[in-house]
Amino acid sequence: MIPRPVARYLPILKWGVEYTREALTNDLVAAAIVTIMLIPQSLAYALLAGLPPEAGIYASIVPIILYAVFGTSSSLAVGPVAVVSLMTAAAIGDVAQSGTAGYATAALTLAMLSGGFLLLLGVFRLGFLANFLSHPVIAGFITASGLIIAASQLKHILGIPAEGHNLFELLRSLALHITELNPITLIIGAAATAFLFWVRKGLKPLLIAAGLNRRLADVAAKAGPVLAVAVTTLIVGGLRLDAQGVDIVGTVPQGLPPFTMPDFSSDLLLKLIGPAILISIIGFVESISVAQTLAAKKRQRIDPDQELIGLGAANVGAAFTGGYPVTGGFARSVVNFDAGAETPAAGAFTAVGLAIAAMALTPLIYYLPTATLAATIIVAVLSLVDLGILKRAWDYSKADFAAVSATILVTLGFGVELGVTTGVALSVLIHLFKTSRPHMAVVGRVPGTEHYRNVLRHNVITDPHILTVRVDESLYFANARYLEDRLYDMVAQRDDLRHVILMCPAVNEIDMSALESLEAINERLAALGVQFHLSEVKGPVMDRLESTHFLEHLTGEVFLSQHQAMRELSEHGAEARPAEALSNQHA
Amino acid sequence: MIPRPVARYLPILKWGVEYTREALTNDLVAAAIVTIMLIPQSLAYALLAGLPPEAGIYASIVPIILYAVFGTSSSLAVGPVAVVSLMTAAAIGDVAQSGTAGYATAALTLAMLSGGFLLLLGVFRLGFLANFLSHPVIAGFITASGLIIAASQLKHILGIPAEGHNLFELLRSLALHITELNPITLIIGAAATAFLFWVRKGLKPLLIAAGLNRRLADVAAKAGPVLAVAVTTLIVGGLRLDAQGVDIVGTVPQGLPPFTMPDFSSDLLLKLIGPAILISIIGFVESISVAQTLAAKKRQRIDPDQELIGLGAANVGAAFTGGYPVTGGFARSVVNFDAGAETPAAGAFTAVGLAIAAMALTPLIYYLPTATLAATIIVAVLSLVDLGILKRAWDYSKADFAAVSATILVTLGFGVELGVTTGVALSVLIHLFKTSRPHMAVVGRVPGTEHYRNVLRHNVITDPHILTVRVDESLYFANARYLEDRLYDMVAQRDDLRHVILMCPAVNEIDMSALESLEAINERLAALGVQFHLSEVKGPVMDRLESTHFLEHLTGEVFLSQHQAMRELSEHGAEARPAEALSNQHA
Repeated sequence: MIPRPVARYLPILKWGVEYTREALTNDLVAAAIVTIMLIPQSLAYALLAGLPPEAGIYASIVPIILYAVFGTSSSLAVGPVAVVSLMTAAAIGDVAQSGTAGYATAALTLAMLSGGFLLLLGVFRLGFLANFLSHPVIAGFITASGLIIAASQLKHILGIPAEGHNLFELLRSLALHITELNPITLIIGAAATAFLFWVRKGLKPLLIAAGLNRRLADVAAKAGPVLAVAVTTLIVGGLRLDAQGVDIVGTVPQGLPPFTMPDFSSDLLLKLIGPAILISIIGFVESISVAQTLAAKKRQRIDPDQELIGLGAANVGAAFTGGYPVTGGFARSVVNFDAGAETPAAGAFTAVGLAIAAMALTPLIYYLPTATLAATIIVAVLSLVDLGILKRAWDYSKADFAAVSATILVTLGFGVELGVTTGVALSVLIHLFKTSRPHMAVVGRVPGTEHYRNVLRHNVITDPHILTVRVDESLYFANARYLEDRLYDMVAQRDDLRHVILMCPAVNEIDMSALESLEAINERLAALGVQFHLSEVKGPVMDRLESTHFLEHLTGEVFLSQHQAMRELSEHGAEARPAEALSNQHA
Repeated sequence: MIPRPVARYLPILKWGVEYTREALTNDLVAAAIVTIMLIPQSLAYALLAGLPPEAGIYASIVPIILYAVFGTSSSLAVGPVAVVSLMTAAAIGDVAQSGTAGYATAALTLAMLSGGFLLLLGVFRLGFLANFLSHPVIAGFITASGLIIAASQLKHILGIPAEGHNLFELLRSLALHITELNPITLIIGAAATAFLFWVRKGLKPLLIAAGLNRRLADVAAKAGPVLAVAVTTLIVGGLRLDAQGVDIVGTVPQGLPPFTMPDFSSDLLLKLIGPAILISIIGFVESISVAQTLAAKKRQRIDPDQELIGLGAANVGAAFTGGYPVTGGFARSVVNFDAGAETPAAGAFTAVGLAIAAMALTPLIYYLPTATLAATIIVAVLSLVDLGILKRAWDYSKADFAAVSATILVTLGFGVELGVTTGVALSVLIHLFKTSRPHMAVVGRVPGTEHYRNVLRHNVITDPHILTVRVDESLYFANARYLEDRLYDMVAQRDDLRHVILMCPAVNEIDMSALESLEAINERLAALGVQFHLSEVKGPVMDRLESTHFLEHLTGEVFLSQHQAMRELSEHGAEARPAEALSNQHA
């Protein structure tokens, strides 16, 4: 029997002991397919991060194995991904020059910090923090990142130098150098891009028409980039186009991932901790979304806190084996799932495949043009761009539209980090703003029922001595004074008022500020000779009110139901005025 | 007829034309009383701000008149107040040395920035922003400020130098210099402090016993500081104690407030804009709280946005007439109210009184010991200190306790600005955290009724094929994934499930992130062969859902009431299983 805490932190002990021969076969097949897909992708994302191509391969070996030990998803494929690569480039570009040893070390340090932060979140079970990234912010951020990444790769397609961390810097830099473009590079890059787009859209139907089954056709189409890599490498190598100015990958060291050491100088750590936190959270959100989507299809469950530990371990692994920050990638995980991966072992086998590639295949890609890798990236990231989110958000709610459009614009204009930060801050502000002016309705009884509805929407019965106001929000500091103001306004418009009932079925909390306001309302209504009552107060809210002196000071009562409140108060009112006088305001 | 926009921005046009002889008498009496109280108070607060004493008088003349023109409260007395004086000292202490011309100019600049910011808020009707200062944050901040202010004045009572912007710096500085204490200063300071405390507690009952009416006794007790000022000035002047090392006010220039010019250098503006914003908001909150409390007693209304304009104008006025940031003060406004002020004209008459004092009386206070002024401040601010808020917050809610204690500790330890910022940020985070894990209850029907209640709290009837979950919170990005997770967990625990109903009577909003989650839930339940329904969805939420494709994809229905949902779905269920089989889980 494995002790519980050990089993919790080592999910491998659970699925490992149940591992079957059939699962092994399925995992091996999936691993072979994912390996083929990952070789060009890893090289390409390393290029995007400004690192040597082998860093991408290294980042896909040990991290995958560590995730297989600590992670809970059977389908997630961990490694370099587009958005995190872009964020890595932005973060370490600020502290070192691309191509230097310091740059690669900064990437290791970033991976270590990110891994450490993820582990911390996991151990303290703080995975819910990722929930503060709202859907509009994530969608806006991914779309804008996709555009920036695509723009950043245009220089490889055009064969010109260009720099910049936001869309405008990149486009201006491209425009400045456009006269230097290399026509051969452009032909290779444009052809590869066109081919890869066609593979995505056109190859699958063709393969299906040719008799291949749908799933296999799907997987085969994913091997398109490998074909593009092979063909363009052969052409460039055969014609020695590198002598014509076509940029090639060149010598990639052969061998297993090296043991590397991050830089622990406090100066660098301080500079990178902010970006590391952001990369961790973004990476976690991307990873957990994919993992949960795929798990749902198999009716499996993902443990978000254990996922943090799996991803944290993967990043720490990347830091010590020549990699850079990694996370669970969308495209590769879907391929892994479609190819039939059954357990995290599939990931481990992928790592073995990539290790073999790192040892044996790197000389073969000497002539691989960077334009082909850029084409792979462009095609991959443009599929993430979803400008339709703007329209959908606009139609659904202007607040969500504000969040998504601000995130897109700030990300495009000022880079990834500021974009996400702005999006999150704006989402929180918008939420506070919305809840700071809650919907409040004067309600009356629907004739013949015990239901109480908005007098403006329904034909209801009210009592001229009684004002019932339903407030549709928890009462807390941001809306406490608004409640006071609105209530005083409503009371000021009525003469002959004897009772005010605050109907609270939607009040899930009353914080201390709101309690102060309720006390102020009670006091001020008392000065006007009006009793203040509450109705339909929820259990937990009532428990808390009972711990204070509020109920002693309350001039009125707390009624379990609104109907009971009206029955009792109208009867009292009836002493002065016959019950028949109940007026129907709308009749 | 006055045009509406003019009338809005110039409330004086409204009360001015209705001004009566009786109101004039009342306003004059109130003004005389407040003037007497304000002379020592203005000097003292200028001392607290590190400014020459006349700055306090100047800050009480033109600003009061401008507030009388633009403000809406008939009782508010505008001028220097303790907390704003402390914040002024902290803000300008960072950019200039106390006692230099640059220091006074920085104070003018701060007043101008603060006035400009308040005017902006007023014109754009952003007064509601002050609501984000929760009650615990304000209470904690005022208490901590009171302690810091009292500690900062101890040096004047002891006759030693001491510096510092937080409690610990101040206490350490006092301890370092304690050997230098001046015994005569200490005797004067301690005697004045004791006298002023006694005036607050003991004088009023004495006057009432002597036959004075209660209101007059109250007002007379407020003149205690004037008596202390007169007596100690006479003693120090008569015995020439200044030669014995007793610090005195010395020469105060005679005359009306000068025309002064703030510094418009962008460097200074940039340094002061942050503190100016904070001072504006804190000042506004203090002022509006007093104004609303007093207005409520007379059943009058305060317009918060016009108040911003009144206070903004007052601060701009202070900037150009040798003052420093001002706001509506608690103590003086209460005195003004008690003394019978009927319109803002009382403030204008106070300004005239102070102008006369500035022209004629300043030579009389040459020998006024600063220890007496310090005693005035200490007695005033200690009445603001309310450490009981800690206990009350602890009893009511741990979240509010966290906010109030963090605000107090950070203010004491790191100063006013960081204290308030921490308090606000923490309040927002706590609110988000609380709403990120909403209360969710499985509900069943209370036998013999149409009410549905928590199965854990009530003895209710449920159907084994139907799971009804009530969620007690608006659904938005911070809790959307939590909802998914909890719902999947609940579903996973049940076999034989055919329907899941999400009961939404407390859902006031569904944002785009939550909509995504509902779609994901719908899809995942469909994969399990379970229909997903909603019940008791509010009107505005339903309107919004209808603008999307969600309802088309929804496998189940949206029911107006939970009871209707159960009737329809149980009938469907009855085809497979007789209605008698409805099980009572608790029976």
